[in-house]
Amino acid sequence: MIQLNRQRVYEGKLFNVTHVTLENSEGKAVGRDVIEHPGAACVIPMVDKETVLLVEQWRVGAKRALWEIPAGTLDPGEDPLTCAARELEEETGYKAGKLEHLFTMYPSPGILDEKMHIFVATDLTKGVQKLDDDEEIVIKPFTFRDLRVQLKANNLKDGKTIAALGYLMVFKPYLGKD
Amino acid sequence: MIQLNRQRVYEGKLFNVTHVTLENSEGKAVGRDVIEHPGAACVIPMVDKETVLLVEQWRVGAKRALWEIPAGTLDPGEDPLTCAARELEEETGYKAGKLEHLFTMYPSPGILDEKMHIFVATDLTKGVQKLDDDEEIVIKPFTFRDLRVQLKANNLKDGKTIAALGYLMVFKPYLGKD
Repeated sequence: MIQLNRQRVYEGKLFNVTHVTLENSEGKAVGRDVIEHPGAACVIPMVDKETVLLVEQWRVGAKRALWEIPAGTLDPGEDPLTCAARELEEETGYKAGKLEHLFTMYPSPGILDEKMHIFVATDLTKGVQKLDDDEEIVIKPFTFRDLRVQLKANNLKDGKTIAALGYLMVFKPYLGKD
Repeated sequence: MIQLNRQRVYEGKLFNVTHVTLENSEGKAVGRDVIEHPGAACVIPMVDKETVLLVEQWRVGAKRALWEIPAGTLDPGEDPLTCAARELEEETGYKAGKLEHLFTMYPSPGILDEKMHIFVATDLTKGVQKLDDDEEIVIKPFTFRDLRVQLKANNLKDGKTIAALGYLMVFKPYLGKD
């Protein structure tokens, strides 16, 4: 696809919307709206080899609270690794001794340009929780045995959390022994 | 959170944007933009116990083509199972003998109300591919051995595809023997 034109059609606090005109392989013009978002860093915090911390917070997209791995939006120009370390400490009060990048994904690439960078954090030590003014977060440890039950029952409904935990169970099973 | 007010701020073809005013637990008013989307059905098509079909299509959110499980937007009032069967046949030309719901997820619940309903399709038989006018899709079979390599290398970057394949590998390993 060749991009012919871009026009900003909405500006918001967390994202903007741009109308893009594209030329497809047959030379035909095709219009698409795309939501522009700075991207996010997401962290699986492992307090030990059996236990992950999840955070619960109210989400406007779900109209309810969801249990999720800690995550936050990249500041302008911020490196995803730096953001992951910052968000982990802000949301949970833990500092990561080790942060490993697992994968990067587009959560809804047909309409949204957000990239989510997924990390696993180990060697955690206590730091200081610093929530944003409008954040209200509950933190709870889950064992891998719990997480399998919660995933199977679809009680976990956040996409990045399902993708991240599934990935860890498939590729890093030594982190999830219980 | 209690909803105080909703105001439509953008209307597009695939999604709208609404500004929501909420009251948090401290009685403070908080504003949020939410992208409103009809939701989607997504299908892992298994041609046999070792092989999954993926489709490649250009995505405006990624500014490139991505390999993904087949998926499509729910028509108004459409049941996710019906949509899954329809999208599978439209995109791949295969009819599912059996469609099993695996899980439902919010891909980006902080900004987007889209729900993705994930299914696995088995007992496939040849039907007729019917692409939308602006869809250009390549179809390719991948063995589970391939998929593990592609996931590990992060060559697969679509969130629903990573979540769905990870889930299948964790909970339905008998479907993915190779």
